[in-house]
Amino acid sequence: MYGAGDVRVIDVPDPVIQQPTDALVRVVSSCVCGSDLHPYHNLPVLPEGKPMGHEFLGVVEEIGAEVSTLAKGDFVISPFAWSDGTCDLCLEGLQTSCRHGGFWAGNGIGGGQAEAIRVPLADGTLVKAPVGEDSELLPSLLTLSDVYGTGYHAARKGGVTARTTVTVIGDGAVGLLAVLSARQLGAEQIILMGRHKDRTDLGIEFGATHVVAERGEEGITKVRELTRGDGTHVVLEAVGHMPAYEQALGVIRPGGVISRVGVPQYEEAPVGFGSLFGQNITLTGGPAPARAYIERLLPDVLDGKVNPGKVFDRTVSLEDSPAAYEAMDTRQALKVMIK
Amino acid sequence: MYGAGDVRVIDVPDPVIQQPTDALVRVVSSCVCGSDLHPYHNLPVLPEGKPMGHEFLGVVEEIGAEVSTLAKGDFVISPFAWSDGTCDLCLEGLQTSCRHGGFWAGNGIGGGQAEAIRVPLADGTLVKAPVGEDSELLPSLLTLSDVYGTGYHAARKGGVTARTTVTVIGDGAVGLLAVLSARQLGAEQIILMGRHKDRTDLGIEFGATHVVAERGEEGITKVRELTRGDGTHVVLEAVGHMPAYEQALGVIRPGGVISRVGVPQYEEAPVGFGSLFGQNITLTGGPAPARAYIERLLPDVLDGKVNPGKVFDRTVSLEDSPAAYEAMDTRQALKVMIK
Repeated sequence: MYGAGDVRVIDVPDPVIQQPTDALVRVVSSCVCGSDLHPYHNLPVLPEGKPMGHEFLGVVEEIGAEVSTLAKGDFVISPFAWSDGTCDLCLEGLQTSCRHGGFWAGNGIGGGQAEAIRVPLADGTLVKAPVGEDSELLPSLLTLSDVYGTGYHAARKGGVTARTTVTVIGDGAVGLLAVLSARQLGAEQIILMGRHKDRTDLGIEFGATHVVAERGEEGITKVRELTRGDGTHVVLEAVGHMPAYEQALGVIRPGGVISRVGVPQYEEAPVGFGSLFGQNITLTGGPAPARAYIERLLPDVLDGKVNPGKVFDRTVSLEDSPAAYEAMDTRQALKVMIK
Repeated sequence: MYGAGDVRVIDVPDPVIQQPTDALVRVVSSCVCGSDLHPYHNLPVLPEGKPMGHEFLGVVEEIGAEVSTLAKGDFVISPFAWSDGTCDLCLEGLQTSCRHGGFWAGNGIGGGQAEAIRVPLADGTLVKAPVGEDSELLPSLLTLSDVYGTGYHAARKGGVTARTTVTVIGDGAVGLLAVLSARQLGAEQIILMGRHKDRTDLGIEFGATHVVAERGEEGITKVRELTRGDGTHVVLEAVGHMPAYEQALGVIRPGGVISRVGVPQYEEAPVGFGSLFGQNITLTGGPAPARAYIERLLPDVLDGKVNPGKVFDRTVSLEDSPAAYEAMDTRQALKVMIK
């Protein structure tokens, strides 16, 4: 990406092993994330360009001398952050705060929207999956890189159980997979706030029991009507803009938990007596340690019990990836896979 | 209280039973709360005055026709909110949000800094204690009305266990009892941030393992030095002013929990990527449902295993209660009991 709206596909030298803990991965499929649209809107002109993409599946082509759990030919899922898997924070399941880890597409690390990528700390980062490159499961496996793990993180940090009612704010891929995750964790009432019918229909398929298309005060009133005036025990906020935060405050029950996974596009927000404190509302969430959830979520994907890959409604070739950004930006596509 | 700094002791008619669920309680001891100092600083002139006090022990003198668990002569502890004890929110342990409850000293309900008080929803609100009016345990029992339950709420909402490190911000009665509570919940490293040596000495007696007298960046640096650069898993914020919130952000570990029980004197605060979100920090807390904790905390008080009443360092008669406000406001006293 060379600036807002300026995505180009160029030839660069193949990556090479730099550290003995690296692996080289040939990318089989990647995709565009809702968060990639932020630089697509805002990136200043950057003559040298920057690599893009943090979600990918691929095949290991080469490993460094110290990589012990992977071999050439392994099919792997990469989470959206790389991590050693051995530090105390990783062991606590907070791989996004790994003491030696980092994020794709910066600081000398490439992006997933490419033919190949160097993976640092490969043993800690990558997860093998027993599938071939032509598997029909690829779309669902690819969601484990980010959007499914992120929706699951929201639900888990929100404390969703069979006894909690849930509102999900946002009908993007993360919101829809937060619905799926809440259902997997047992929630029986899941209210999805979103106004794109094709997306909320998928939300219903994933387990939403109610859809509220209205926003702001009108939407808040609708959710309260569905919950005896109370709001829900948990709100999963998958947007990141201030109106979504305010909506969350409006539909949360006393003692409830607002769990955010939409990257906040604000720094200050109401947290005082009239918003969070007075009714003992908890605010939680953050970047999902997707790596922590892959093993947990993988079996149901492999068994076909869940089909999170349905969030992909378009596929393009790497050469056409600029069109992927445009389709998502104009909301012609929910989420675009890049082959 | 008739305005900022204007506390008067006046004669008013004795309260009477108004609802069949009421009890009349003769107050044996009450006290001044740190939160009473806010109106002591800010209350506009109020010609009719307002009753004060929300912490009290007393003896039941009369009960309404529907009160079934109390009898004349019972010695009782009152939490700082009254509640029915039967609604779903009470049953969930959130009595401060009771569907039929409320707070003392307003809306026709008197305050605890008085000779007698009408207690609404007496069955749900009051807890009997097997002591006499002359018990040496009165100071400790009185802390169950608010400050001990509030410190305990902070620690419990913060998720304090034997595996968590803890910072407590604030050396007032609530902060010191948050230290005691964190110790009871098993925390092995408890850093108390406070700059009044007599108070932090009591904090050490209650279980603090380290005291940091410095504030702001200097204090943050000290806490980080004590925690290998990380900060602690849990921060218990018992102040309520913005610098304390900022201090909490500075000493919290990635993935940690900031639990607030100091009533926020601000509405907006940083919660975005650079403060809470980026490192998966959780913000929790609120008014303590003190009622929820009285039965749990009472046995150790009765056994003398803990002595939270040490936070009282002065006792005055009801006639002298204006002096109690002054002593606390000028920090000559930590917490003043009113007999």
